[in-house]
Amino acid sequence: MNHKNTFKTLGAVMLVEAAFMLPSLILAFCLGEPARPFICSILITAALGMLLRLLTRGQSPFSSRSAFVTAAAVWLAFSLAGCLPFCFCTGFGSFIDCLFESVSGFTTTGSSILYDIEALPRSILLWRSTTHFIGGMGILVLASAVLPSRGDRSYYLLRAEMPGPTKDKLLPKLADTAKILYLIYIVLTLTQIIALLIAGLGVFDSVNIALATAGTGGFSVKNASMAGYGNPAAELITAVYMLLFGVNFSVYFLIITGRISRALKSDELRFYLFLAVAASAVIALNARFFFASPGEALRLSFFTVTSTMSSTGFSVTDYDLWPEFSKSVIVLLMLIGACAGSTGGGIKCSRALMLLRAVACELRQIVHPHLVSTVRMDGKLVDDSTLRSVSRFFAAYVLLLFAGVIVISADGLDFTTNFTAVLSCLSNIGPGLSKVGPACNFAAFSPVSKLALSLLMLFGRLEIFPILVFLSPYSWKKS
Amino acid sequence: MNHKNTFKTLGAVMLVEAAFMLPSLILAFCLGEPARPFICSILITAALGMLLRLLTRGQSPFSSRSAFVTAAAVWLAFSLAGCLPFCFCTGFGSFIDCLFESVSGFTTTGSSILYDIEALPRSILLWRSTTHFIGGMGILVLASAVLPSRGDRSYYLLRAEMPGPTKDKLLPKLADTAKILYLIYIVLTLTQIIALLIAGLGVFDSVNIALATAGTGGFSVKNASMAGYGNPAAELITAVYMLLFGVNFSVYFLIITGRISRALKSDELRFYLFLAVAASAVIALNARFFFASPGEALRLSFFTVTSTMSSTGFSVTDYDLWPEFSKSVIVLLMLIGACAGSTGGGIKCSRALMLLRAVACELRQIVHPHLVSTVRMDGKLVDDSTLRSVSRFFAAYVLLLFAGVIVISADGLDFTTNFTAVLSCLSNIGPGLSKVGPACNFAAFSPVSKLALSLLMLFGRLEIFPILVFLSPYSWKKS
Repeated sequence: MNHKNTFKTLGAVMLVEAAFMLPSLILAFCLGEPARPFICSILITAALGMLLRLLTRGQSPFSSRSAFVTAAAVWLAFSLAGCLPFCFCTGFGSFIDCLFESVSGFTTTGSSILYDIEALPRSILLWRSTTHFIGGMGILVLASAVLPSRGDRSYYLLRAEMPGPTKDKLLPKLADTAKILYLIYIVLTLTQIIALLIAGLGVFDSVNIALATAGTGGFSVKNASMAGYGNPAAELITAVYMLLFGVNFSVYFLIITGRISRALKSDELRFYLFLAVAASAVIALNARFFFASPGEALRLSFFTVTSTMSSTGFSVTDYDLWPEFSKSVIVLLMLIGACAGSTGGGIKCSRALMLLRAVACELRQIVHPHLVSTVRMDGKLVDDSTLRSVSRFFAAYVLLLFAGVIVISADGLDFTTNFTAVLSCLSNIGPGLSKVGPACNFAAFSPVSKLALSLLMLFGRLEIFPILVFLSPYSWKKS
Repeated sequence: MNHKNTFKTLGAVMLVEAAFMLPSLILAFCLGEPARPFICSILITAALGMLLRLLTRGQSPFSSRSAFVTAAAVWLAFSLAGCLPFCFCTGFGSFIDCLFESVSGFTTTGSSILYDIEALPRSILLWRSTTHFIGGMGILVLASAVLPSRGDRSYYLLRAEMPGPTKDKLLPKLADTAKILYLIYIVLTLTQIIALLIAGLGVFDSVNIALATAGTGGFSVKNASMAGYGNPAAELITAVYMLLFGVNFSVYFLIITGRISRALKSDELRFYLFLAVAASAVIALNARFFFASPGEALRLSFFTVTSTMSSTGFSVTDYDLWPEFSKSVIVLLMLIGACAGSTGGGIKCSRALMLLRAVACELRQIVHPHLVSTVRMDGKLVDDSTLRSVSRFFAAYVLLLFAGVIVISADGLDFTTNFTAVLSCLSNIGPGLSKVGPACNFAAFSPVSKLALSLLMLFGRLEIFPILVFLSPYSWKKS
C-alpha cells in the first residue's frame, strides 16, 4: 500500500488544524488567558505537519484501500493533535481524558468528562466548539476545499468520510463540491449566530452554540448546557438549527439551484421530518405532567427530539426523569439519527428507511413469490450492492453496539447506562440515560472504557468501515 | 387466497392438540385432582377440530402465502386452545394471563406470570411442560409426521415453521423427514428422563424437566426452577441436554447415518460450541467471587450459558446478581441463541455467523475492490438470496426489539427490564434482567404489554415473517 499518500495528507491536515487553533490563541491573548496551551500546540502540530509535507513530495492516485486507511489515520492524528491544548491546560485529568474530550469534539459526539465547564478558560471552550465545527462537515472535505486541487483522485478519500449509503457528487469537480458544502455550512452557522444575538445571547455564547450546533456536536460553554441560559427564544432557534443541520446538504444545494420541488420530494427528508414531528408530539403528550404548560411541553420535547435526532446532544431539561415511554422513544431516535450527507450521526434516516422497505419487500416476495419485488428511494430503484452495503453496515453497527456494551460493562455500571452510553457514542449523540443522562457525564468510566468509547465515536463518525480497514491486518499486507 | 386449506389444517391440529391433553387428564384422574379443566378443554378443542374437518373436505396445494398464513393461524389457534385448561383451573388470573402462559409454553419461551407454581395441580404442571414439548419441534412438523401423507404439497407449510436461514430436507419425503426428526427428539428426551432418574430425581420431576428441556422451554414444576432440587448431578445432566437440544437436528441425522466427520465439520456447530465454552469460562472467571468453589463456578456458569444459548431459560442461580460484565455476555447470548434447525430460539448461530462473515466480506471488498469476495458456510458458497433474507430477518428482528421496548415501556418499568424482557420473549428464552430476572416473573406487566410480549414470542418462534404475512393486509387481498 502507498503510505506516502497517507503521510502527505496527514501533513496537510495537520497544518490546517494548526491554523484552526489560531482563533483560540487570539482569544486567549485578548482575554489575558494563558496562551501557552495554544502556542505549544500550534508549534507542535505545525512542525509535524511541515515535516510530513517535506518528507513526502509528489503524489499518486488513492486506491480505495489507502483512502480508507488515510481517512482513519487523519481522524486519529487530528484527535491526537486536537487534545494538545487540553493537555497543556489545567482542569483536565489524565491524557486519556483529554483524548476522550478531543475525539468527542471532532466526532461531534459532545460527551464530556468535565464536571465544571464554566471554570475553564474561554479560549479552551472556543477550541472545544471549534473541534465540533471542523468535525461536523469533515476534515477531508475541508482539505479538498482549501488545498490546491488534487483532481478527482481524492474522491475515494472523501467517500470514506462522508456519511450515508450513497455519495452524491453535487458538482463535477470534487473541490467545487467541497467548496459549496462548506459555503452552505458557514452561511447557516452565521445566520444562527445572528439569530442567537437577536434573541439576547452574548457574542461568545452565540458563536460557541452555533459552532457546536453546526457540527451537531453538543459541547456547551455552560454546565447546564442550553438550560443554563433560561432563554426560550434561544432554545427554539437552536432546536430549529439542529433540525436544519441534520438534513442532507444536497437538499440545500437543490434549493439554492432552484430545484425546490425535487428537494422537497426526498423520501429521506420526509421520513426525518415526520419522525421529528411525531416524536415531539408523542413525548409532549406522554411527559406532559413534567411541564408547566402545553407550550413548554412542546418546546422542550421538540428541542430534545431535534437534539437527539440530529445527534447534537444539547439539553434543556433532564429527560432521564421523563416517563420510560418517552425515554424509549429517545433511545430509538438515537439509533436512527440524522439524514445521510448531513453533519449528524446515527445509522441515518435513509438507511433506516431502506431497511424498513427491504423488510416490506421480503414480505411482498413471500406473498407473491412470482413477482419481482424491489426497494425504491425517491422513486428510483435502489441497486443490490447499495442494499447489501446497508445491511452489512447495520449488522456491523449492532455488533459494535453489543461488543461495546460488553467491554465497558467491566466497569460495573448498570445495563441502561452501558447500553445508552455505547449507543450514544456510536451515534455521536452525547448524553444517554441513567448515569450518562443529560445531568451527568462520562467521567465515571475507567480509562479502558474511555478509550473503547472514543474508538466507538470514531467508528460512528466514519461509518465503521474506514476504522475497520485501518485496524484490519488485510490492509497492512503488501498488495 | 385459499382459506379452505387453512381451516382444514387447523381442524387437524386441533384434534392433535386434544389428544395431547389426554396424558394430563389421566394424571388428574390418577392423583384425584380436578379433571374438569381437561375434560372441558378436550371436548371444546376436539369438537372444534372435527367441525373444521367436516366443513372442509378435499384439499389443494399450498401456496407460499397461504402456507405462511396457515402456520401463523395454527400457532394462534393452538395457543388459544392450549390456554383452556389454565382458564378452567383456579390459580391463574385473567384470560390474558392464561393466554400469555400458553403462548409462552408453545413458543418454548418459558416466561411465566405465576408466583406460586408448586401450588398448582400436577396435571396442570404436566400440561405446561407438554406445551413446551409440542412447540419445540413444531406443531406442523408433528402434523406432517402423524397425519395421512399429504405429499410434498405441505413443504411450504413446514418451511414456515422450521427455524433457520436454509431448510434442510433430510429425506426425499417430507413425512419421513418429520418422522425422523420426531424420533431423534423422543429418543433424546427419553434418555434425559432416564439420566435424571439415575441422578435421583422423582418420575414426575424427571418427565417434566425433560419435556421442558427438549422443547428448550424452561417452565419448571418448582418455584426455584432447577435450583429447587439442590442436585448438582441433575443440573449437569440438564445443562448437557440443553446444549444438545440447541444443536441442529440434521447433525444428529448425519451422525445416525454414519456421516460423523461431516456432522462435526458444521461451521454453525463449531461456532455454537465455541461460544458455549468461551462464555462459560469467561463468566466463571468474572463471577468467581459469587461461588463457593471453582467447580461450582464452572457448573453454574455452564448451566446458565447453555440455558440461555439454547433459549431454555431454566435457572440454577439468580444471575441478575452477577457482575455487569457477565450479565452483558448473557444478553449477547440471548440475541444469538441456538442453532438453526434445533428447538431453540434467537437469531440462530448460523445467521450470526453469516452476518459476521458478510461484514468481513465487505471489508475484503473495500481492501481489494477488484476481487470478488464471497460468504461461505461449511465450505460452500452462500447464495445472494439467502444472504439477503438473513439481513432482512436481522433488520426486522432489531426493529421488533426496539418497537417492543417502546410499547411495553408505557408500563413505566426500567429500560433494562423492558429491553431484556422483549429480547427474551423475541428469542424465546424466558428470564431477562432486573425485574424480569431469574428470581422474578412477568406478572408486573399490564395486559397490553402481556399481549405485546405474547405476540413477540410468536414472532420469535415462527421467525417473524409468517406472523408479518398473517398481519399484513397484502395477504388478505384476493390474488
